[in-house]
Amino acid sequence: MTDLSIPHILRQEIRARRFRAPTTGVGGDALQANLVILPEAEASAFLRFAQANPQPIPLLAVSEPGAVALPSLGQDIDLRYDLPRYRVWHEGVLTEEPEEIAALWRPDLVSFAIGCSFSFEAALAKAGLPLRHQEAGRNVPMYRTTLATRPSGAFHGPVVVSMRAMPAAAAIEAVQICAHMPLAHGAPVHLGDPAQIGITDLMQPDYGDAPVIEPGDIPVFWACGVTPQAAILAARPAFAITHAPGYMLVTDIAADQAERHLRGVHGL
Amino acid sequence: MTDLSIPHILRQEIRARRFRAPTTGVGGDALQANLVILPEAEASAFLRFAQANPQPIPLLAVSEPGAVALPSLGQDIDLRYDLPRYRVWHEGVLTEEPEEIAALWRPDLVSFAIGCSFSFEAALAKAGLPLRHQEAGRNVPMYRTTLATRPSGAFHGPVVVSMRAMPAAAAIEAVQICAHMPLAHGAPVHLGDPAQIGITDLMQPDYGDAPVIEPGDIPVFWACGVTPQAAILAARPAFAITHAPGYMLVTDIAADQAERHLRGVHGL
Repeated sequence: MTDLSIPHILRQEIRARRFRAPTTGVGGDALQANLVILPEAEASAFLRFAQANPQPIPLLAVSEPGAVALPSLGQDIDLRYDLPRYRVWHEGVLTEEPEEIAALWRPDLVSFAIGCSFSFEAALAKAGLPLRHQEAGRNVPMYRTTLATRPSGAFHGPVVVSMRAMPAAAAIEAVQICAHMPLAHGAPVHLGDPAQIGITDLMQPDYGDAPVIEPGDIPVFWACGVTPQAAILAARPAFAITHAPGYMLVTDIAADQAERHLRGVHGL
Repeated sequence: MTDLSIPHILRQEIRARRFRAPTTGVGGDALQANLVILPEAEASAFLRFAQANPQPIPLLAVSEPGAVALPSLGQDIDLRYDLPRYRVWHEGVLTEEPEEIAALWRPDLVSFAIGCSFSFEAALAKAGLPLRHQEAGRNVPMYRTTLATRPSGAFHGPVVVSMRAMPAAAAIEAVQICAHMPLAHGAPVHLGDPAQIGITDLMQPDYGDAPVIEPGDIPVFWACGVTPQAAILAARPAFAITHAPGYMLVTDIAADQAERHLRGVHGL
C-alpha cells in the first residue's frame, strides 16, 4: 500500500497524478506550504510584503530565479509537478487551475514557500482536538476578512483566514499549541463572532468547503496563506502562479521541528 | 503617600485597617493568594483535595499547625491580620465575615495559601489587555459552575470561576500569557457561552460584583481559588476560616517569579 503519510511518497503520487485531492490530513506531521511564484521583477516587493505580514505569510523558503527545487524543504522537490493543483494569474485575474505548470515555467520565476495551517493540524489531532473538516473529508473553509495586511509596493488587501470549529476548551488548548508554531501562522487571530472580522455567512466560505459545526462549538480563525492570493488580486502583477487553496506543497520537515530547521543553526 | 503597590506596605495598611477593600489592582505585580484554614484533623483530606485539583487550587504554601506566619511567601506575614476580610464557617455554614481572626486562633489550625487570578492581572494589564472590573473599581465576578472538582475525602463540589470580559483578540493573548502561570490558575477553563458551564445569568455572579461587558466582548473564565469555599459548603468541616472572595493575602513574590521561587531551587 502507498503510505501517504510519508512526504516524499506523497509527492511521488502527486507527481504521477495518482493523488489529486487537497492535502489536509496527509503527509503525516510534515510542514505543508502555500506557494507563490512571481517574476523576479515583482519578487522583491512581494518579499517585503511577506516580511511585513509574518502571521498570514510566514516565509519558509525563497528560490533562486528559475530554480524549480527548494532543497531546504525537501531533497527532490520539483515545484512544477509536486502540488496537486495550481492557479495561474494574469494581471490579477485567475485564468486556469492546472495540475502541473511545466509548460508555463520561465527562467525569471522566483518561488516563495509560505507556512500553512495544515502543519499544525497533526499537533491538534495529537492533543485530541477535533478537526471537523478532516472527519467529514472536506477542505478547510477559508474567508476574506476586514482585517487588513500591511501594504508593500503594489501588494495589499485583506487577511484571509482558515476556520476550525471546536468546543471552547479545545479552542483554549489550540491557542496554546499553535502559539508555539509561528511558521504555521501561530495562534489564532480571532474566535467567536465571525461578523467582528467581516464574515457575514460562516456557511459560505470564500475558499475551500462549507464548514461542519457541532452544537456548542465556537469558530476559531487562523491567518491563512491564501492571503497572498487576495494581494495578487489587488496588486495585479503581470503574471503569477500559486497553489490552489488546500492543495499544498508537502515538505520533508516535521512541523514541530520547523523552527529549529528553518530559523536555527540549520537555517536558510 | 502610601504606596499600595508595595506588598509589605499594603499588608501594614491592611493590618492597621486603613485598607479594607478587595485587593484587585493593588500590590503591584505580586502573587496574591486565597486562604483556607482548617483544623489539623481535616487538613490532610484538604491537602489531597488540592493536589487532585491543581487548576482551581494551586497550592503556594502550607503552614505548620498553629503557625500564623508563611515565611516562604513573605517575611512578616501574620495570617490573623493581613487580609482585609475573612469568612468563618461552622459545619459548612458561613457565620461571620470579620476583619481579623486573632480571637478565633487555635494551635491546631493549618493554613493553606492558594494561587489567585489577581496575580496574572498585572501581566494582562502590561500586555495592554482590558481589566473591566478594575477600570470600574469593582471586585471581579465569580460563579459556581457545573464543572466538578475531583473529590477527596469529604471535599467535593463545583469548580468556581472568575470572569473577565474582553475582545476575542485579547482573549487569545490572555490564554497565551496565563498558560505560563500555573500557580495563578493557568489558562482559562472556558470562554464564550456561559450556559455551557452552567452559568445562567452572567450579570448575577455568585461572588464579587456584577461584570462590566463592552460591545464585542466575549466572557473568559478562569478556575478560581474560591472553589475551596464551595467544597467547605459541601464537606461541612466542624470549623474553617477562609479569605472573603476578592480580599486576598498579598505576598512578597513577583507573580512572574512564582514558579521559580515556589517550585524551583528556592522551593517549599
